[in-house]
Amino acid sequence: MPVGTAGTVKGMTQAQLEELGVQILLANTYHLYLRPGHEIVRGVGGLHRFMGWPRPILTDSGGFQVMSLKSLGRVTEDGVWFKSHLDGSAHFLSPERAVEVQLALGADIITTLDECVEYPSSHEAIHRAVKLTGRWAGRAKRYYEGRGTGDWGLETGGEPSAISSQPSASETQASEQSAIANHQSPIPAPSPQPPAPALFGIVQGGVDRDLRRESAEGLLELDFEGYALGGLSVGEPKAEMYEVADYTAKLLPRDRPRYLMGVGTPEDLVECVARGIDMFDCVMPTRNARNGCVFTSQGKVLIKHTKYARDESPLDPACECPVCGRYPRSYIRHLLVAGEMLGAILTTQHNLHFYVDRMRKIRQSLLFGAFAEFHSRVRAEP
Amino acid sequence: MPVGTAGTVKGMTQAQLEELGVQILLANTYHLYLRPGHEIVRGVGGLHRFMGWPRPILTDSGGFQVMSLKSLGRVTEDGVWFKSHLDGSAHFLSPERAVEVQLALGADIITTLDECVEYPSSHEAIHRAVKLTGRWAGRAKRYYEGRGTGDWGLETGGEPSAISSQPSASETQASEQSAIANHQSPIPAPSPQPPAPALFGIVQGGVDRDLRRESAEGLLELDFEGYALGGLSVGEPKAEMYEVADYTAKLLPRDRPRYLMGVGTPEDLVECVARGIDMFDCVMPTRNARNGCVFTSQGKVLIKHTKYARDESPLDPACECPVCGRYPRSYIRHLLVAGEMLGAILTTQHNLHFYVDRMRKIRQSLLFGAFAEFHSRVRAEP
Repeated sequence: MPVGTAGTVKGMTQAQLEELGVQILLANTYHLYLRPGHEIVRGVGGLHRFMGWPRPILTDSGGFQVMSLKSLGRVTEDGVWFKSHLDGSAHFLSPERAVEVQLALGADIITTLDECVEYPSSHEAIHRAVKLTGRWAGRAKRYYEGRGTGDWGLETGGEPSAISSQPSASETQASEQSAIANHQSPIPAPSPQPPAPALFGIVQGGVDRDLRRESAEGLLELDFEGYALGGLSVGEPKAEMYEVADYTAKLLPRDRPRYLMGVGTPEDLVECVARGIDMFDCVMPTRNARNGCVFTSQGKVLIKHTKYARDESPLDPACECPVCGRYPRSYIRHLLVAGEMLGAILTTQHNLHFYVDRMRKIRQSLLFGAFAEFHSRVRAEP
Repeated sequence: MPVGTAGTVKGMTQAQLEELGVQILLANTYHLYLRPGHEIVRGVGGLHRFMGWPRPILTDSGGFQVMSLKSLGRVTEDGVWFKSHLDGSAHFLSPERAVEVQLALGADIITTLDECVEYPSSHEAIHRAVKLTGRWAGRAKRYYEGRGTGDWGLETGGEPSAISSQPSASETQASEQSAIANHQSPIPAPSPQPPAPALFGIVQGGVDRDLRRESAEGLLELDFEGYALGGLSVGEPKAEMYEVADYTAKLLPRDRPRYLMGVGTPEDLVECVARGIDMFDCVMPTRNARNGCVFTSQGKVLIKHTKYARDESPLDPACECPVCGRYPRSYIRHLLVAGEMLGAILTTQHNLHFYVDRMRKIRQSLLFGAFAEFHSRVRAEP
């Protein structure tokens, strides 16, 4: 999944994403909640209408941004207090609120609020996060299951804005704890958006096998439609990441998607599919592109280097993307050096093609029983 | 002609420009000469190969940027001394050099170096500029006519780099006047690039009819393949611009393209075609787009305004562009407010469609004898 942080994969039009064969996008709940606001997105008809993107969308819960952007105020049993990176305003995110915001956005796959601890953390801290993540997953599931039923006072297919509900006990308590403006009104019930999105639970546990098992088993009891592996690719050694992904994937049901969050390099995709992972998201293809780092069949190319100033060849002679069919390296280098938007646009288009193509090849090799061979070939690449 | 300053129409891929029906682009000689350098572009095979743009390109002479970017050192009989806006380095542009650089870039239409005076200027200053522009046009034409002939020591279709020539007397003099590095080597002869580009002369004369006539008559003697009207849309009242365009166009041959430089608004296009103009270039559709100003059938829309935050409608319900077929105003506003590249990309795509479509309608109405009717309809628009 290419990452569309604020409802856009930076530099790409939705038509270009479709042409590249992108099947599903990730959008960040944290960013869309703060700007333009999930109610605006809901009002326009949801993220698909808002973004002009008819294909699937997955939203994260917002928890990772809250905890990684150093804007974190306080993690409580109820949820997370945080400050906006835009204007410093204070906000509260609970497991229920995270689901509610994601339902308003109208994604196809939504995720439960989790606590992601940094690497390395003490066994105690990871264990505490695993337990809290488990309790939050339960609350998210119960809130999600109550959407659009009589529980929420919804009798007919009325306007979302007409729906209201009583805040939960813990929500009320949180409200009373603070006069922060954005948390004064009760959380409205989620609007029914047929078809209902799939809800994924998130497995935590750092690089500790017992804690990963404990986290997975707790989630399995709740029976999610898919399972995400959180808390990986946060600084641990690569071998350890592969091992934990392998171990954790084996704990999860074969008939539910397994999604490894925030991973990774082109090699990671193959290595982790080999270990049982089905889905990925990562900013690497798009962020690297904007910095002039392009992925090719011959390895990474740092295209801003002076040696490409007169280079007439495409970014990757073996590549079939629209960029490699048209533009020489010299031009793309020129655009990036001159700070022209088209530089980032073209490198992004190329890198996304590389990633989408890699996943396409993985699927094809699996379908035709040739994955082991493909896996070996990728390992032998530069 | 959309403006592709540094070899790119900001935010657009060449494929998108083709899809919009753009027939010809303008690129700025000044910018490409400084970065990446015309020799790099020539080395890659010219601007068409460099940019991946197979359709026609027009290059300006560089004179306007030199004189308008306040980087001007000194205008001499020989040419113009100026400083780079990038690094302050000193450069010299002569009529011959301007043609040589443009031939290296490999555009389809190239232009003569002119002196463009600001508005208002004294009669004396304008007259001096008209005369200098005329002499420079003659030098440019002679240099251009000598390209690829025995005059330049070219016997066979050798490599451009193998061609050398003696500098002209005035060039030698200029070289000797200064030790500035980039002017120490003699100007190489232009390389033969079949088919030869068309050379346009530029009419100056401010808003003075007699001076416009004097300028035009001087150029007509030199017999250019097309004529540009320079020194308009530089601050004079609109009525005066229309009048001078009208007067000047009538002085020019009916069978040669007339190109009004740096104009203009969507209304200007129709008004000036009515006065005999065939070609235009302007940054307005692209620059306004990046600032959130979009052209619609109902007039300009400043899309960043709060009132569009929840607007589900397209930029222009009457528009058939790819942007209006997919994205609501609320989304485009969000992107621009959030500083996302896609905001500028979409508004640029829309505005270019508006301009290209306007010219398409003008051509169609001329073809079917309905221009007067179209002209009236545009005048009645909001």
